[in-house]
Amino acid sequence: MNYLNLFILTIFCLFTSGTYAENHPDLAWKLGYSKTQLEEPVNFISANVPGAVQLDIAREEKYPSYSFADNYKKFSWMEDRFYTYVTSFRKPSLNTNERLYFSSKGIDYQFEIYINNEKIFAQEGMFTYINVDLTDKLKDDNVLKILLFPAPKRFPFPVDRIQASNVVKPPVSYQWDWHPRLIPLGIWDETGLEVRNRSYVEEVYINYQLASDYKKSVITILASGKETAGKKYSWELTDADGKRVLHTQGEMQDVLSVTGISLEDPKLWWPHDQGTPYLYLSTFTLFDGSGKEIQKVVQKVGFKRVRLIMNEGAWTENSSFPKSRSVPPAQFEINGRKIFAKGSNWVNPEIFPGIITKERYKELIDLAVNANMNIFRVWGGGIINKESFFELCDEKGILIWEEFPLACNDYPDDAHYLSVLKQEATSIIRRLRKHASLALWCGGNELFNNWSGMTDQSLPLRLLNSLCLEYTPLIPFNPTSPLMGMGHGNYVFRSPDGEEVFQEMKRAHYTAYTEFGIPGMSPIEVLKQIIPENDLFPPKPKTAWEDHHAFGAWMGNTWLCPEILEDYFGKASDLEELVKQSQLLQCEGYKAIFEEARRQKPYCAMALNWCYNEPWPAAVNNSLVVYPAVCKPAYYAVKNSCRPFLASACLSKFRWNEGEEFFADLWLLNDGYEPKDIRTVTMKLVAGDQTFDLLTWHPGNIKDNTNKAGPTCRLKLPHLNQTQFRLVVEVEGHPEYNSDYTLIFIPKYSVNNDKTPVMNAN
Amino acid sequence: MNYLNLFILTIFCLFTSGTYAENHPDLAWKLGYSKTQLEEPVNFISANVPGAVQLDIAREEKYPSYSFADNYKKFSWMEDRFYTYVTSFRKPSLNTNERLYFSSKGIDYQFEIYINNEKIFAQEGMFTYINVDLTDKLKDDNVLKILLFPAPKRFPFPVDRIQASNVVKPPVSYQWDWHPRLIPLGIWDETGLEVRNRSYVEEVYINYQLASDYKKSVITILASGKETAGKKYSWELTDADGKRVLHTQGEMQDVLSVTGISLEDPKLWWPHDQGTPYLYLSTFTLFDGSGKEIQKVVQKVGFKRVRLIMNEGAWTENSSFPKSRSVPPAQFEINGRKIFAKGSNWVNPEIFPGIITKERYKELIDLAVNANMNIFRVWGGGIINKESFFELCDEKGILIWEEFPLACNDYPDDAHYLSVLKQEATSIIRRLRKHASLALWCGGNELFNNWSGMTDQSLPLRLLNSLCLEYTPLIPFNPTSPLMGMGHGNYVFRSPDGEEVFQEMKRAHYTAYTEFGIPGMSPIEVLKQIIPENDLFPPKPKTAWEDHHAFGAWMGNTWLCPEILEDYFGKASDLEELVKQSQLLQCEGYKAIFEEARRQKPYCAMALNWCYNEPWPAAVNNSLVVYPAVCKPAYYAVKNSCRPFLASACLSKFRWNEGEEFFADLWLLNDGYEPKDIRTVTMKLVAGDQTFDLLTWHPGNIKDNTNKAGPTCRLKLPHLNQTQFRLVVEVEGHPEYNSDYTLIFIPKYSVNNDKTPVMNAN
Repeated sequence: MNYLNLFILTIFCLFTSGTYAENHPDLAWKLGYSKTQLEEPVNFISANVPGAVQLDIAREEKYPSYSFADNYKKFSWMEDRFYTYVTSFRKPSLNTNERLYFSSKGIDYQFEIYINNEKIFAQEGMFTYINVDLTDKLKDDNVLKILLFPAPKRFPFPVDRIQASNVVKPPVSYQWDWHPRLIPLGIWDETGLEVRNRSYVEEVYINYQLASDYKKSVITILASGKETAGKKYSWELTDADGKRVLHTQGEMQDVLSVTGISLEDPKLWWPHDQGTPYLYLSTFTLFDGSGKEIQKVVQKVGFKRVRLIMNEGAWTENSSFPKSRSVPPAQFEINGRKIFAKGSNWVNPEIFPGIITKERYKELIDLAVNANMNIFRVWGGGIINKESFFELCDEKGILIWEEFPLACNDYPDDAHYLSVLKQEATSIIRRLRKHASLALWCGGNELFNNWSGMTDQSLPLRLLNSLCLEYTPLIPFNPTSPLMGMGHGNYVFRSPDGEEVFQEMKRAHYTAYTEFGIPGMSPIEVLKQIIPENDLFPPKPKTAWEDHHAFGAWMGNTWLCPEILEDYFGKASDLEELVKQSQLLQCEGYKAIFEEARRQKPYCAMALNWCYNEPWPAAVNNSLVVYPAVCKPAYYAVKNSCRPFLASACLSKFRWNEGEEFFADLWLLNDGYEPKDIRTVTMKLVAGDQTFDLLTWHPGNIKDNTNKAGPTCRLKLPHLNQTQFRLVVEVEGHPEYNSDYTLIFIPKYSVNNDKTPVMNAN
Repeated sequence: MNYLNLFILTIFCLFTSGTYAENHPDLAWKLGYSKTQLEEPVNFISANVPGAVQLDIAREEKYPSYSFADNYKKFSWMEDRFYTYVTSFRKPSLNTNERLYFSSKGIDYQFEIYINNEKIFAQEGMFTYINVDLTDKLKDDNVLKILLFPAPKRFPFPVDRIQASNVVKPPVSYQWDWHPRLIPLGIWDETGLEVRNRSYVEEVYINYQLASDYKKSVITILASGKETAGKKYSWELTDADGKRVLHTQGEMQDVLSVTGISLEDPKLWWPHDQGTPYLYLSTFTLFDGSGKEIQKVVQKVGFKRVRLIMNEGAWTENSSFPKSRSVPPAQFEINGRKIFAKGSNWVNPEIFPGIITKERYKELIDLAVNANMNIFRVWGGGIINKESFFELCDEKGILIWEEFPLACNDYPDDAHYLSVLKQEATSIIRRLRKHASLALWCGGNELFNNWSGMTDQSLPLRLLNSLCLEYTPLIPFNPTSPLMGMGHGNYVFRSPDGEEVFQEMKRAHYTAYTEFGIPGMSPIEVLKQIIPENDLFPPKPKTAWEDHHAFGAWMGNTWLCPEILEDYFGKASDLEELVKQSQLLQCEGYKAIFEEARRQKPYCAMALNWCYNEPWPAAVNNSLVVYPAVCKPAYYAVKNSCRPFLASACLSKFRWNEGEEFFADLWLLNDGYEPKDIRTVTMKLVAGDQTFDLLTWHPGNIKDNTNKAGPTCRLKLPHLNQTQFRLVVEVEGHPEYNSDYTLIFIPKYSVNNDKTPVMNAN
């Protein structure tokens, strides 16, 4: 075998949160694989760290892009191999107080670590940071090896997500209705060697409790590490202008807990649409006996109070005997203020988490802020994101509903699973609890539904509740989503029984809509990158369209739903027209749902669509942003529906007939914390050059965080010269509050494309 | 002050579970009280220990019985005093290995302990056993003093249960709709001095896990105590015949954990109606260095597996979008067998728990077994019962749903309350977990309803979930009752809107009926003991009737409901007639509910009426057993409705008119684990000497644990010579399965007592 020899930078370990890797000397890694654990790999190729074994092999063996057609299937053999990462290095010169560590923020999934062929560490679980002191095992030249086990698969289950039902590994990669079967393995986060002082701090946690009037934050510093007892420390808190506002110092203990440090009049952290996501800077410094600085731990701190409280009206429902319980709370209160949570379900932005960059996170999070979203539900089917994700949410003011990696499976009450879950969850909680954006823990996705089969008695969920209580008692915890009173779905514009989103949302009565989706096609440029040219039009099952979720993904012909498109619009003559049809339904569907959820405020307090982004380019998906970060038209529609203040129309259906009475209710929606004074709002119907004024309303004062229902417009539909028309709502002097909606018009005696007379009934 | 001097029996501490007190030398206690903590009491009276300060004062000052009329009001001043219990004793002779302990199983509620005027212990909480080593503080003559604080009252709330909303003290005594305002204080469980070896075992817990085929029990012995490390121990398990089936020995550690002890083919513990509540005997013996026995801990062990699983059909409900979650599980499975849980809500059998005896427990538990009940829900408004309660339930085969002492209040997320709750709950869980009868933990009563105001986010409930998981992961936990899909109420035969229990139960669809009640009057002999003779008839508000819950207890004129009685039966001419009317409604109402709940099996899996017993003699109450242990007629009605196998009629209303078509559905109900073969069942209508045969059914085979619906009888009601008639269901050759129901008949042109013509409409 041929190892690269490296020089090690022996620097003082001076790490700051989020820049941990900067101090890792670069190592050159090689990767090999074998069919059994005992076999040594025959060949080694160069490996990117962080990355994934699949990406290294694909690069080395010149695989075509896994995003194109069904190329991902070529990767399936890689699930069942043992992998060996190997690197070599010269022993650095270390003084008596220095130790050499191998450290990693994530190795996926089960592995053993060897130094010079001696096993020194083993772990199951990809979310627990690894810190192995190599010092006592070092020779002049050293070989570090990581043996990785094959992708875990629960036996004897089918090739499906259920194979991941006894591991703390994201089930999404075992195949989902918008994710191919492709199970990442490998070193997936910052990893390397690090020289540390014998005494070092592993964790600094700035805990706090805000006074009930928010005029004071009472801080507790918790710090722990290795051989720190007796060392001196200092701590300071500086504000966003760099001004020191608090300072203390003292002597470390094994576990330091300094309580009762008061910050008067703290500037609060707010979601971006409610105020400033204000962050302070905490700097904790450890000194050696001579007063020389050993280590600095720098991290941002935001002060907020989050509660899940009862939705308005929820206590008084269900008043007849026998009485059950009231629904659980789903109203976010931030710093004492009820907010309407508007946002989306975040999924992995890459199939291989090893290649997610801070830049990608930033691009996607900036887009969410721009779309007036204030929350992400980080869905339990995917990974726990890297630190930079949370740092960005802290900075940008996006609330995080964080799920543990459990989804749509019956995770067992089994001792081994529970022990891995405890290890991983503890690591996750302790890592994330310092983030101002953390607003809600959740055990996982759809676990109390029959396709999963877990119940309130399931020990994994009781364990997660218990661990969250232990480490973060002030962050709410839900065992799963949906809970009673919360809605998941639907995921199509029109369900098989003919009910459209408009009607579904009118009959719906939920405290929170935590998932709802409308599929929309990706832009043509994206489609051309993933579908072979010959298959592009018309889309057909059993082609690359199906691999990319246009057919056979979920129920019926999802996600393309060609029969719905054709029924509304007639057969599309080319791909461009088809994409337009699909994207129009996605836009109008999402507008209907987001705006109706907001109209149901204050009983309803949340609207999160399924889903925000995607891990690879889907041909059709409920996502708003196509991989890697391409906005669909629906993104802009949702951005409009999520404006803090807007004029909105409540529609009852999509397709209208000539001669029928068209009607729509006019609303002003205000999620902002300012009242508004609106003089005049008008509604008109526009079809090409035909315009019909429908009504004029003088609403006057609109209270803060309160909607106002206006009048209903009515018009017996005349003959229109187009098959679509727009309902336009205009706010005089405030075009930024305007809205418009596109609807389908059916003229009398019309015939559709296949010559069958259209039924003009409602 | 005048203290009694006592001789102390210096015996070896040889305690066995449940007979802890036998080794406590008797102490003579005196009691005094004062208005402030600093004042010394002026007078001391003799005190009964265990008991209550109120009972000592009442005895000494010759108070009349608190059960009569409104005498309990005379006790109210006692809520706000400081109490001092005091006793004196000579120092016993102790060898170098012996220590003298003051030990108590319960002092209610907040107290400090002084030896020779030095404070040596303080505690808030009545359920944590107290063990104070006095040895180093002993003089030749010693004075032991317990200073008790006044009844805790949350400030500034009204004189109501809400005053108990931040303490771990049963709120029931702060007043309930069947409990007077009378808040016990004092030493309430076995208490005394005890000579112990320096090395002693405090807790032995025989933990186990049954194999999935129940062919093996894998046992872990957990033992902990004081200065036990290095001492030898032996342990044996004997069966009910005294035959040793397991044995091991070894050396103690501070916390001993001996795992993997296998018992092959264990005899299982079953609720009495499903099999034998088989108990083994565990004997743990501690030896000193010379091999001499120091201590024996003897306790019974039953092997069972309990789970709460999904009710049949519950997974497939609520199938339309948006989807919420499925209801939580409410089906008990014992040793792999689904059982229908039939029973009642247990409340404190005394206002003052200090005077509850094992004999009282036995009498009440025997009655429950006799009434075919297999479960008690020990309601969260009351105390955690004494050990003998659980020992008897273990022996008799009654399952225990055990609630923590939280009920109908919004217990706060406050650090002090949480710390007391943690201490008390930990003590409770560790004490009760050894009992075979323990089947379900529950956070408390009706906490997720608007009159309480707690939610899934409330930290006290998250804490209880977490502690139960830590100490008893194999016992299910519910945060409260009712949960979604479970029903509480109604509590009257007919609600104000005219709906009777018959109709209410027919529209009801619940996984479990965990509370439902029908009020019934106490027997005349009881009434005469509590109501002044002049007030006996007719019952009126603002008299002793109201003090004893006949009026103004809950909504409307509960619990007497005179307008309902009069409407059905006409005005009663004397007390005897009134009692009969009330008791008839209670009987028929309870039969309707228990039997309908059973008909709703398998979706429904539980029926528990509110309530079983009562802490003092109520004039009218939903109870089946009047204080102290007097069976109402409803007790026998419920006993019949709970027979494992019976013929049952499903009725639709209580009052029938001449000429109307009477109908009733015939059922056979089988909760037993045997199939039945039934040849012939008949139904007939009987009114005095008039008899009408209604139908004959040949049902044939009835599967185990399965009901069978039969035909519906119909009869156009002829003129009957009586105002009541009976529907009689007879099983040929099996009179033990017969049932009958009493109903009201209204002849045509009848007039009621006040001369208003009766409306004969349905």
